[in-house]
Amino acid sequence: VRPFDVLVASHGPVAASLLAAAEMICGSASRAAAVSLEPDDSPESFGERLTSVLDPQRPTLILTDLNGGTPHNVACALARRGAAIRCIAGVNLGLVIEAITSDEELDDALVERLVTAAREAVVDASPSVAAHR
Amino acid sequence: VRPFDVLVASHGPVAASLLAAAEMICGSASRAAAVSLEPDDSPESFGERLTSVLDPQRPTLILTDLNGGTPHNVACALARRGAAIRCIAGVNLGLVIEAITSDEELDDALVERLVTAAREAVVDASPSVAAHR
Repeated sequence: VRPFDVLVASHGPVAASLLAAAEMICGSASRAAAVSLEPDDSPESFGERLTSVLDPQRPTLILTDLNGGTPHNVACALARRGAAIRCIAGVNLGLVIEAITSDEELDDALVERLVTAAREAVVDASPSVAAHR
Repeated sequence: VRPFDVLVASHGPVAASLLAAAEMICGSASRAAAVSLEPDDSPESFGERLTSVLDPQRPTLILTDLNGGTPHNVACALARRGAAIRCIAGVNLGLVIEAITSDEELDDALVERLVTAAREAVVDASPSVAAHR
């Protein structure tokens, strides 16, 4: 059982789509949710929605779509107030899969492994590159 | 003007969501499209849909959600048959933004820069890490 919650936060439905795709591949995930910034949201209204799905009793990993974007900035502001919130920007499907299937404690080592996994999931698979190998 | 087309290919609506989010941030993009693998798709039906949006007269960059997933495998199979198709797996929002706003030729150097940009977009922004800097 994963000892932390996973939230994916994004511009529009990126977060919900990534979580649904990860569940299409890995099966249904408990204690994982998606929060979308809609065009008529303010940072405040988005922050209220993000707060409403945060369980203050649980360590929480927030995966955001873009460093410097509103979903990320709001998540980081919450993380500065909450003791056990970690944020990783630049989420891709590989990162969501690694996060929801983890069963480790949400500590520095896990965050570092997840960042590495997300980066290594970015692969140039062009035929010309493969031919050079 | 970008001298190549951009296709985003994914499980379900990840691709369309990422493209819509990138356009929410950067403005509308021409010659960019999203193709989704639906639960009732076969690799063949998905490949037909991907082929139908490919313009064989144009170099095309296909961004896929997951190395080894069906959207990626089908895109790579098309790339092996098409001269001017490049594939990068592990798409995140930063990569879509970099790709649709590029105005360079789709060559090895650009693909390498885009891979680097996508990896560098994955950032641990947790407060405890920031405090250590």
